[in-house]
Amino acid sequence: MKKIVLLRHGESVWNRENRFTGWTDVDLSEKGVAEAVKAGETLRKEGFRFGCAYTSYLKRAVKTLDVVLDKMDQDWIPVTKTWRLNEKHYGMLQGLNKRETAEKYGDEQVHVWRRSYDVAPAPLAEDDPRNPRLDPRYAGIPDAELPRTESLRDTVARTMPYWVCEILPALARYDQVLVVAHGNSLRGIIKSLKGISDEAISEFNLPTAVPYVFEFDEGLGYVKDYFLGDPAEIASLMEAVANQGKRG
Amino acid sequence: MKKIVLLRHGESVWNRENRFTGWTDVDLSEKGVAEAVKAGETLRKEGFRFGCAYTSYLKRAVKTLDVVLDKMDQDWIPVTKTWRLNEKHYGMLQGLNKRETAEKYGDEQVHVWRRSYDVAPAPLAEDDPRNPRLDPRYAGIPDAELPRTESLRDTVARTMPYWVCEILPALARYDQVLVVAHGNSLRGIIKSLKGISDEAISEFNLPTAVPYVFEFDEGLGYVKDYFLGDPAEIASLMEAVANQGKRG
Repeated sequence: MKKIVLLRHGESVWNRENRFTGWTDVDLSEKGVAEAVKAGETLRKEGFRFGCAYTSYLKRAVKTLDVVLDKMDQDWIPVTKTWRLNEKHYGMLQGLNKRETAEKYGDEQVHVWRRSYDVAPAPLAEDDPRNPRLDPRYAGIPDAELPRTESLRDTVARTMPYWVCEILPALARYDQVLVVAHGNSLRGIIKSLKGISDEAISEFNLPTAVPYVFEFDEGLGYVKDYFLGDPAEIASLMEAVANQGKRG
Repeated sequence: MKKIVLLRHGESVWNRENRFTGWTDVDLSEKGVAEAVKAGETLRKEGFRFGCAYTSYLKRAVKTLDVVLDKMDQDWIPVTKTWRLNEKHYGMLQGLNKRETAEKYGDEQVHVWRRSYDVAPAPLAEDDPRNPRLDPRYAGIPDAELPRTESLRDTVARTMPYWVCEILPALARYDQVLVVAHGNSLRGIIKSLKGISDEAISEFNLPTAVPYVFEFDEGLGYVKDYFLGDPAEIASLMEAVANQGKRG
């Protein structure tokens, strides 16, 4: 069986502070590094040998990948970084605390912003310093493609062309491919792969740094998927992600 | 001016133990990580913004590059890894202590093995577990190109096609390019760039993790070169490298 492993980056400093991050380039927390180490050790123990790996332009994903490959003794494999695997852009919410936002706008509104398929937060103003147009790393991207906010539908529309044209074809060449990205960019990919409805995807939560294996047949057709690790621990991690936007 | 920065990886565990390393994939020492941090901070302070970076298949170079880019807040730039930037292959010497080898064979013979342009150490046997033919990372390389030992001339013959066809053309696209590699693969490149003779290159020693800047004009012609850092400190580091193969 051919395999693609999806991995959400380890905890970032803003995950820990419970803030909307999106395209903000925040670092891993110490816990996040430890999670990446654990993911690498799990993948090594399970005997994975990746032909290549993909990640986003954001350091919490890049550094998670670096740690994973190092723990697997596969530092040498080709890595491609792409803005198309970046997290969902959270527009004006970027930097705000999720719980404070819930206190101000209500649990329901925050859940809509975090999890509805079609609703995007208010966009960044053109002169907002957070506008990716002002960041040199995105200089080569046509303005019409560069978001100032995104719904999950928008994120899927940006991510899937790369999945279809780059990542899946890499699986024709290699038996195993690793993708290290973000909660929402990966949720969009998983939605498409498994044919999850626009409604049902809102209740699907991806734990940080737990390897999620997708198996494909020789024709690159999806066969099945499963997490690596202890099922009870994974369920509790998914529950914790679901509760981040609640007043508690 | 367009610029390529050459950087030898930070101290590895075998540099510290004074052993011939070559293609052995040994890790950075703690000092080596600290050296990489310092190189990254220097490059950041000097305002470098690399368009892309190149490194070898060996983790001491890959990890030095990762640390440097992280300290520069440029984790996101494209990185290409290639076996053609690997260290000189040291054949049967790989793993031996440099001083013990000097005690057995004499300072002069060790200097010839380390620094002569044309003499290669005895090659690895085909069934030697150190033979790169048995390492999956080199599976895609034609057997005639895969060394079992190398003279510096052999290393240059392997490295320069990549320099000419990949690295220098990248400088047409980007103003600044970073290359993190190894003492001898970089000595070969420097020899070619500066037109150093086969004899004179034997006395040229490259310190670990000191950024070495090469400037090029718009036609990609070599203009000048200089190290970044304190000249007295760099001179003392180069002296230390020269003395590694002596009985002391």
